[in-house]
Amino acid sequence: MKFLRYGALGAEKPGLLDAEGKIRDLSGQIGDLAGAALDPAALAKLGSVDPSTLPVVDGSPRLGACVAGTGKFICIGLNYSDHAAETGATVPPEPVIFMKATSAIVGPNDNVVIPRGSQKTDWEVELGVVIGKTAKYVSEADAMDYVAGYCVSHDVSERAFQSERSGQWTKGKSCDTFGPIGPWLVTKDEVADPQNLSMWLKVNGETMQNGSSRTMVYGVAFLVSYLSQFMSLHPGDVISTGTPPGVGLGMKPQRFLKAGDVVELGIEGLGSQTQTFVADV
Amino acid sequence: MKFLRYGALGAEKPGLLDAEGKIRDLSGQIGDLAGAALDPAALAKLGSVDPSTLPVVDGSPRLGACVAGTGKFICIGLNYSDHAAETGATVPPEPVIFMKATSAIVGPNDNVVIPRGSQKTDWEVELGVVIGKTAKYVSEADAMDYVAGYCVSHDVSERAFQSERSGQWTKGKSCDTFGPIGPWLVTKDEVADPQNLSMWLKVNGETMQNGSSRTMVYGVAFLVSYLSQFMSLHPGDVISTGTPPGVGLGMKPQRFLKAGDVVELGIEGLGSQTQTFVADV
Repeated sequence: MKFLRYGALGAEKPGLLDAEGKIRDLSGQIGDLAGAALDPAALAKLGSVDPSTLPVVDGSPRLGACVAGTGKFICIGLNYSDHAAETGATVPPEPVIFMKATSAIVGPNDNVVIPRGSQKTDWEVELGVVIGKTAKYVSEADAMDYVAGYCVSHDVSERAFQSERSGQWTKGKSCDTFGPIGPWLVTKDEVADPQNLSMWLKVNGETMQNGSSRTMVYGVAFLVSYLSQFMSLHPGDVISTGTPPGVGLGMKPQRFLKAGDVVELGIEGLGSQTQTFVADV
Repeated sequence: MKFLRYGALGAEKPGLLDAEGKIRDLSGQIGDLAGAALDPAALAKLGSVDPSTLPVVDGSPRLGACVAGTGKFICIGLNYSDHAAETGATVPPEPVIFMKATSAIVGPNDNVVIPRGSQKTDWEVELGVVIGKTAKYVSEADAMDYVAGYCVSHDVSERAFQSERSGQWTKGKSCDTFGPIGPWLVTKDEVADPQNLSMWLKVNGETMQNGSSRTMVYGVAFLVSYLSQFMSLHPGDVISTGTPPGVGLGMKPQRFLKAGDVVELGIEGLGSQTQTFVADV
């Protein structure tokens, strides 16, 4: 099942995508795609509703972030061996964790605002994992029981803020609009193997990233288990699992985004995003 | 005015502390100490209510975190020159920012759970700043207009998780219960100078930290302005502004917390916290 949220920013309604690609309204069934509604059992129950009995949403409404009530937006750094190499780093002996501010979250096709003073705004297509129920000290074998599903996550990054402005990466990862997620929350039953998904990103039509979650160092089940050793994961928390090679920082010469650039990105089976980058005037 | 939240975890009600130290119920006035209720103008209006007209809360209920709806729990690293020295670091040329998971937030006197596998759980008394209205690109001169008030913040830290388990500090800062805040949200009109507050912390009655916000490198107004250049600050966001010297990591030999230890900490005018540290069984 492909769940989504549609409507104006801050007033999104829950919906699903039917087999014909039409949006069907779920606001008669759930308040939002948040909290208890994300429990895998609750999602399965929702998925058993005949879509044809749900109201069709006319037109092409804006899509919001595919999940609401995100308390933690956790990112994994350097989680593709070839991406680590391109940035001059080595693969860490255990996952590198950093946080992106949840206030950075926007819809998949919203404009991304280049913050004032930015010189090095960069792209990163990532597989997002949405937590469906509270996980604490879970084993890798049990970890998938706590996952609601997957989404495309764009971990937009300002490299100078991240690495040249005194410590901790969060500074370059948390700018407003730097966290487009969606278009859909795709339930895990639709994803046969999260470790074998092709993923790509283009800037103004030119392919920059063309990888696969196959080369991820620490896989989804391991990450959910690992994170849950440090902190409880709650429904709506999003884990952005790292990016394959091809970011602007790793190019020779380096290449960064400017106002007017259009970035498209997608992951096999999870849909795609398109953002126009704009100046913060 | 001293605002607070009282009652069982997850079911706290808003209240205030009257001149006699009694809790008065504010649930007839506001839903919670969150969002728009934190606007400095709204708090001033609440503060104009005659406390004697509000219901007295009997007994000694549990206190919750003094603010709700915290979207970001932002911490400043190495923000006291003498603390930087004790940890072997130098004062950074601009503030170091990291995030603590909001799921770590608990009440000021709740038990703190030492996570499984922890060897180096440490204490840090900090001045907490509560944001009252949305701030973006604000100047240092205007920054205080966006502050609701102050609180005691205990930035509990697991040093091995923070620094010995692959990068980014958030891993050692975000464990469940590692973020006691309160007892009160003290409005800024009651704090003549946030850069001249004595602050202290004791472990089992022994004084470990005995400092003052006077030695803070980057002050409150600067930090609010600085952070707002990177991301919007929203009502309920909490900034924990760093710790003075005296943490266990800086002692020779180093000293860390174990189950059964009792930590008390406080800041001049902002009240005190008492936590028992317990094992995670």
